Amino acid sequence: MNNFKITLEYDGRDFAGWQRQSETAGRTVQGVLEEALSRICAHRVMVHGSGRTDAGVHARGQVASFVTESARTAAQIVQGANCLLPPDVAIIAAEAAPLDFHARFSAASKVYDYDFSISPVRKPLLNKRAWWVGPGLDWAEIEKALPHLLGEHDFAAFQSTGSETKSSVRTIYRAEMSEPGQGLKRLTLEGSGFLRHMVRAIAGILAEIGRGRRPAAALPEIIARADRSLSGPTAPPDGLYLARVIYEAEGLSNSKPIESFHAPQGNRLKAQR
Amino acid sequence: MNNFKITLEYDGRDFAGWQRQSETAGRTVQGVLEEALSRICAHRVMVHGSGRTDAGVHARGQVASFVTESARTAAQIVQGANCLLPPDVAIIAAEAAPLDFHARFSAASKVYDYDFSISPVRKPLLNKRAWWVGPGLDWAEIEKALPHLLGEHDFAAFQSTGSETKSSVRTIYRAEMSEPGQGLKRLTLEGSGFLRHMVRAIAGILAEIGRGRRPAAALPEIIARADRSLSGPTAPPDGLYLARVIYEAEGLSNSKPIESFHAPQGNRLKAQR
Repeated sequence: MNNFKITLEYDGRDFAGWQRQSETAGRTVQGVLEEALSRICAHRVMVHGSGRTDAGVHARGQVASFVTESARTAAQIVQGANCLLPPDVAIIAAEAAPLDFHARFSAASKVYDYDFSISPVRKPLLNKRAWWVGPGLDWAEIEKALPHLLGEHDFAAFQSTGSETKSSVRTIYRAEMSEPGQGLKRLTLEGSGFLRHMVRAIAGILAEIGRGRRPAAALPEIIARADRSLSGPTAPPDGLYLARVIYEAEGLSNSKPIESFHAPQGNRLKAQR
Repeated sequence: MNNFKITLEYDGRDFAGWQRQSETAGRTVQGVLEEALSRICAHRVMVHGSGRTDAGVHARGQVASFVTESARTAAQIVQGANCLLPPDVAIIAAEAAPLDFHARFSAASKVYDYDFSISPVRKPLLNKRAWWVGPGLDWAEIEKALPHLLGEHDFAAFQSTGSETKSSVRTIYRAEMSEPGQGLKRLTLEGSGFLRHMVRAIAGILAEIGRGRRPAAALPEIIARADRSLSGPTAPPDGLYLARVIYEAEGLSNSKPIESFHAPQGNRLKAQR
């Protein structure tokens, strides 16, 4: 028995989210991944993700784990699965993990990016990749709001209505803005965990603050009132990326996973005369 | 009568290229653009592009011109058309032009980018956006080949077989590599004009040189022999971007077009609870 930790990149635009659903409900990342790994391992494989991502949400570093009786190495799994997986998802790293490693329960924290496009005009090359909010937002005011997110809070104000979780208390360790180029502003949040739609609800309230509809100083009260209906719109999934899942226990590296090096397949086949 | 110069961005993945075709042949950039502009101008509009782009090829700065009897301003045209155009194409700039300005005949030069993904693993977020060649190419050798492209040459060696043009002589003014991030290597070519598939054929031979299948020093002879069958594969359209079209005459700015500033429409509508 081997337990593998795999790291995934995907473009969420054509997926009905992470979680496997009935066949009629649409194509999911977990669904196509389990299909590919089951073929590679020659038995039915069940994959555990670090958490669900919704329809349209992307990942640069989703992590999943699975147990297999196959003797294949991590490199063989990466290479084999990536030949079978569709072009919008790939395993970007894999490593053997202790048998008690579980992508969800072993996770120490998660990092999400949310990309805002601040171009004065709609940018088709950022279609489904960022939320176009335009150039008019007050980013200095938004920066002032970020420290209010840090620490342990009941984030019920940013939880999707109808969610059922035991507790809506989460801890945010990091809340930063950066400029990754292409006319983007990127919000990065690292937290112990995130409620359903929580990052998108935070992106939504930050856009409201940037537009001057609420002051940054109102954020603590919005959090404290714990009422989703008072805390603004949910930003679209287009700009959301699960950037990284961080594990501290079980001897697994806390740093960026080592990519499995292998030459791309079929470059000659793709070329045309 | 007003003549407008418009600058376009598009994601080529879902277009059957620039040029309008019969309805059964697929969706084209020219087709959706003429439809939108005809509605804005309230009469049938014919658009002239600086040149065709093939199916799957992107643009950051395609230029087109059209004559209209409408009294609408450039800003009104941008705003109106962008509301009607699909999400994968937009007008990013517009300006009034002299009546004798023609996007194709007035062009002094064109700039194309070709993006190679050198990541060791397939990157789904670069799907349809770059050519995945992997990490093994010798980029120093590729750099050595670039100066051989400069100047006036008969580029028949890089012309798509079956093309019919009067002359295959073109001048390349600039041939450079850069690293725009995301694990990309970018080839930038500026030239007086480009034959059909010429940039993709050059990207293809450069990849062959990078893989050690031909030496950089062989490039002058490959060009001189003017035989498409000897000059390697054509790279896929995924990595190709029409970056900019440069005009020197008619008082039109030679610099980056000024973007028409206006707030994005419908941000509130896109937000969900």
